[in-house]
Amino acid sequence: RRYDYIADGPAIYVDSFATIRRESALDRVPAEAEKVAVRMIHGSGQTDLVDDLVIHPRLVPAARAALNSGAPILCDARMVAMGITAGRLPADNPVHCFLTDERVPALARQWSTTRTAAAVSLWEPYLDGAVVAIGNAPTALFHLLETILDGGPRPAAIVGCPVGFIGAAESKDALAAFADDHGIDIPFVTVRGRRGGSAMASSAVNALAQEEE
Amino acid sequence: RRYDYIADGPAIYVDSFATIRRESALDRVPAEAEKVAVRMIHGSGQTDLVDDLVIHPRLVPAARAALNSGAPILCDARMVAMGITAGRLPADNPVHCFLTDERVPALARQWSTTRTAAAVSLWEPYLDGAVVAIGNAPTALFHLLETILDGGPRPAAIVGCPVGFIGAAESKDALAAFADDHGIDIPFVTVRGRRGGSAMASSAVNALAQEEE
Repeated sequence: RRYDYIADGPAIYVDSFATIRRESALDRVPAEAEKVAVRMIHGSGQTDLVDDLVIHPRLVPAARAALNSGAPILCDARMVAMGITAGRLPADNPVHCFLTDERVPALARQWSTTRTAAAVSLWEPYLDGAVVAIGNAPTALFHLLETILDGGPRPAAIVGCPVGFIGAAESKDALAAFADDHGIDIPFVTVRGRRGGSAMASSAVNALAQEEE
Repeated sequence: RRYDYIADGPAIYVDSFATIRRESALDRVPAEAEKVAVRMIHGSGQTDLVDDLVIHPRLVPAARAALNSGAPILCDARMVAMGITAGRLPADNPVHCFLTDERVPALARQWSTTRTAAAVSLWEPYLDGAVVAIGNAPTALFHLLETILDGGPRPAAIVGCPVGFIGAAESKDALAAFADDHGIDIPFVTVRGRRGGSAMASSAVNALAQEEE
């Protein structure tokens, strides 16, 4: 080799997770969710992500029970769906993203909203007891919370990590405050502020799917 | 609406890019590459990404000329390929990722390397004049640089943004120093340190594909 580097896949994971545990303030997250935080830090390359993580105390048992019983995973972006490792899913769980569904453009026009939010409306038949993974669009998260407030079906857990500069922080604040504001207590994980993204969302799902690292 | 938020897709882009331009020290990147930096910041949600960006002065003309003439885009991860907006590509450019190719597991074993690095070796017939987009694996970037040093075909431009804790920073330092160290001057963009990822890599490609925002 011309360069000196570790080229053993499993060893890279082991070393990465050890580095993360050495450098991150993981005592700030619920003990059960430590591996979720580690994977999200891993996907972002940033140990200070832990400062912005908000993890509901029942996230891990709720999401894991749902996935073990075959719950589908509903993603706002195809990159999120692509990042989910099928081999880690405990019940061959279906992974859905409706962004490219042919009904989406007309729905988005009809409701004057983004295509991503329109695609979320197509989750409806699958949403009850599902695991939601939002890694792109604040409008998707806002739309989901609104459908729940309107009496729609409730997911078992929400991975809510939209990224960006317009609405992302606000949508995640709304998720974190949802139980306090509206008395509907759905386990979730989110990242305060602008950070987020598809890698973070799929990393969280991959950690929730299996205890094993 | 139960929440107050912008739900007009194009307006969200416009406001996002304006926020980024207001808050980011974009004078640190080559003028021609300003839109590349803006899109990478957009994908990461972090204005201080600009502090770690290293952009070769000929990146934009080199990558754009290659793409305009139909060059393929070679991705280390399917999430990178998924993040590339087909409608922005100027010549219906093919986007390849060989990670799930059936030859990969055997090659990885044979060479004692990661599957991702083994998949890079399958780029060989497409690599001359291609645009490379690495958003996941340091081993993919190291392997690419090694094949070039061994006299292999040279891409027109390299988007080199692997993420993580083991080898990522080192692989990107090797890319940034490649011309100085080895006298082979290939235009590139990279992000110093641990940050990177598929969203950053595909954002860069999307900006390189078209001048229009």
